[in-house]
Amino acid sequence: MSEDFIREQSKTFDSGVRLDSGRFLAPITLVYETYGTLNEQKTNAILVEHAWTGDAHLAGKRNESETKPGWWDAIVGSGRLLDTDQYFVICSNVIGSCFGSTGPTSINPKTGKRYNLSFPVVTIRDMVRAQKLLIDSFGIGRLLTVMGGSMGGMQALEWATQYPDNIASAIVLAATPRPSPQAISLNAVARWAIFNDPTWRKGEYKQNPKDGLALARGIGHITFLSDESMHNKFGRRFSAKDGQFDFFGQFEVERYLNYNGYSFVDRFDANSFLYLAKSLDLYDVAWGCESMTEAFSPVKAPLQFYAFSSDWLYPAYQTEEMVNCLKSLGKEVEYHLIPSAYGHDAFLLEHETFAPRIRDFLGRI
Amino acid sequence: MSEDFIREQSKTFDSGVRLDSGRFLAPITLVYETYGTLNEQKTNAILVEHAWTGDAHLAGKRNESETKPGWWDAIVGSGRLLDTDQYFVICSNVIGSCFGSTGPTSINPKTGKRYNLSFPVVTIRDMVRAQKLLIDSFGIGRLLTVMGGSMGGMQALEWATQYPDNIASAIVLAATPRPSPQAISLNAVARWAIFNDPTWRKGEYKQNPKDGLALARGIGHITFLSDESMHNKFGRRFSAKDGQFDFFGQFEVERYLNYNGYSFVDRFDANSFLYLAKSLDLYDVAWGCESMTEAFSPVKAPLQFYAFSSDWLYPAYQTEEMVNCLKSLGKEVEYHLIPSAYGHDAFLLEHETFAPRIRDFLGRI
Repeated sequence: MSEDFIREQSKTFDSGVRLDSGRFLAPITLVYETYGTLNEQKTNAILVEHAWTGDAHLAGKRNESETKPGWWDAIVGSGRLLDTDQYFVICSNVIGSCFGSTGPTSINPKTGKRYNLSFPVVTIRDMVRAQKLLIDSFGIGRLLTVMGGSMGGMQALEWATQYPDNIASAIVLAATPRPSPQAISLNAVARWAIFNDPTWRKGEYKQNPKDGLALARGIGHITFLSDESMHNKFGRRFSAKDGQFDFFGQFEVERYLNYNGYSFVDRFDANSFLYLAKSLDLYDVAWGCESMTEAFSPVKAPLQFYAFSSDWLYPAYQTEEMVNCLKSLGKEVEYHLIPSAYGHDAFLLEHETFAPRIRDFLGRI
Repeated sequence: MSEDFIREQSKTFDSGVRLDSGRFLAPITLVYETYGTLNEQKTNAILVEHAWTGDAHLAGKRNESETKPGWWDAIVGSGRLLDTDQYFVICSNVIGSCFGSTGPTSINPKTGKRYNLSFPVVTIRDMVRAQKLLIDSFGIGRLLTVMGGSMGGMQALEWATQYPDNIASAIVLAATPRPSPQAISLNAVARWAIFNDPTWRKGEYKQNPKDGLALARGIGHITFLSDESMHNKFGRRFSAKDGQFDFFGQFEVERYLNYNGYSFVDRFDANSFLYLAKSLDLYDVAWGCESMTEAFSPVKAPLQFYAFSSDWLYPAYQTEEMVNCLKSLGKEVEYHLIPSAYGHDAFLLEHETFAPRIRDFLGRI
């Protein structure tokens, strides 16, 4: 990004949305950032979807004091993959999250108190329903593309299946049509870690329940890495200060999980973590349909998929199931299996590998 | 086993053993069970090694009230793989455990109180050092075979490398020469779950810290199963009583982990869990050696190895590394990769597949 600072924006939609659960959520505030300029025909808009613990701060810096740019800065900016001289890039924080969009930390206007656990369970489809209000508010009839990795990829899938006329293409990285029971079980133990924390108090805490949330995040990190990346990064090395025969001595990988777990407590809310974990586990692209075939039937836009060889959270075979289904329906679909040691995190790290292919794909839209 | 009840036995060795940590542990009590009769030449003894949360109760029943037989009853008994008409089968509880052998729940004779965290960190080599005292006490110069799965397999490896003259063969199932950083990290978060439980009190609890230990065990169960076995067993089914949009609603896999986690609290001690997790993580067959080649050089007995295709905790490639190393040293080694959906637990479940191969192997010793 250029030296200009990015401004966080927000819009509130009093109309709200009817959720998959049947509950109604209103008003809905969405926090978002934009990069580049929307052209007059409104045909150059790209929506980038963030993952579980991400936010609307996709690229650049918001002020001088920020030491790091946004989470996908590597691909957004003048001359970059999502070239802001050419495209109008939007990233909005999902509902259920804790970075300004309506979620469990928001004040429930009916009670004047934080929602906490009275916040409704939201699905990934619900997140996209809310985003649709934002895109409509710009007067954008059709997004040039919608793209994202992991939970971001699931949102792109929802755009492709629920709003087939409103996107010209979609790019889905490291996603799954539905998390496996193994992936669910890893989220289940993460939730359990928070439930076990006595300071969580069924969501009615004043301070983030740090031990439980740190452990939950530690468990998450295991799923984001891979056997191979852990070998490369830590091996079986012991943390220097601690003896092997010290009961509390730690392996380096253990210290890494610990450190990253506790850092996370400063930036993410425990209830939001639980709500989004739930959204992920409930996700099924064929929600409400008889089959994946039925779910993909409405798709009109060309889709591009990426899976990463060492991703064991959402393994490649799950992406391939979608690709094969779309092909059997005669849909325009492109698939790349990227060899990578980085596990699930690869979608954030392997941009040099996938950027040229995305550039080609966008060039053809 | 026959209708006779099995008697739990124990021996105390005042001499104790010098541990890998340099600390000295004495006295050492070992609880064990035996099946069949030791022949006069003492050449028909088989030592079966239990895994992490196992015990000496290998087969049969100890009294009328027991509803289930020992943990590997399927292969031990008259006419079974380890035919008690032919062999004298021994199983002893490891030090560090909580089923009668000396461990953190034992009384430290120097203080008159439970060891708790003053118990020394023990390695798997230390467990085998203690077992050697037991085998010597029977006057058994050479075990016909030593066999075990997972941590039991690691103990068999220690017999093969540390006491090469005292075994005629070894059978190693679902083991690893050293746990990967991924395996370590999964134990690390399990430990963390116990550390987080305020009732654990740095090991000085009166009652097992149930929420922490249950979660730790829940995490363990994920590693014992596989993506495939979870698909087969639970799929993405929701627990009947709970709604999908109920915040506390559970997937069936989640309920399974919860149920098994809390059941575990009734039978296993949290400190023992931590000590044995540590022993597992520290395990390295090449401990104190320059290389695996050096570690395997003393091996004299033929070794038989089993790995299971869906075991992601100790994946087959890790067993294959040992097999290849032994082959390159010209050692007598046999390897079977068993196709199985059961994950790491396969070594307890796939006995119909491996029993005939073990029978052949034992027949050749």
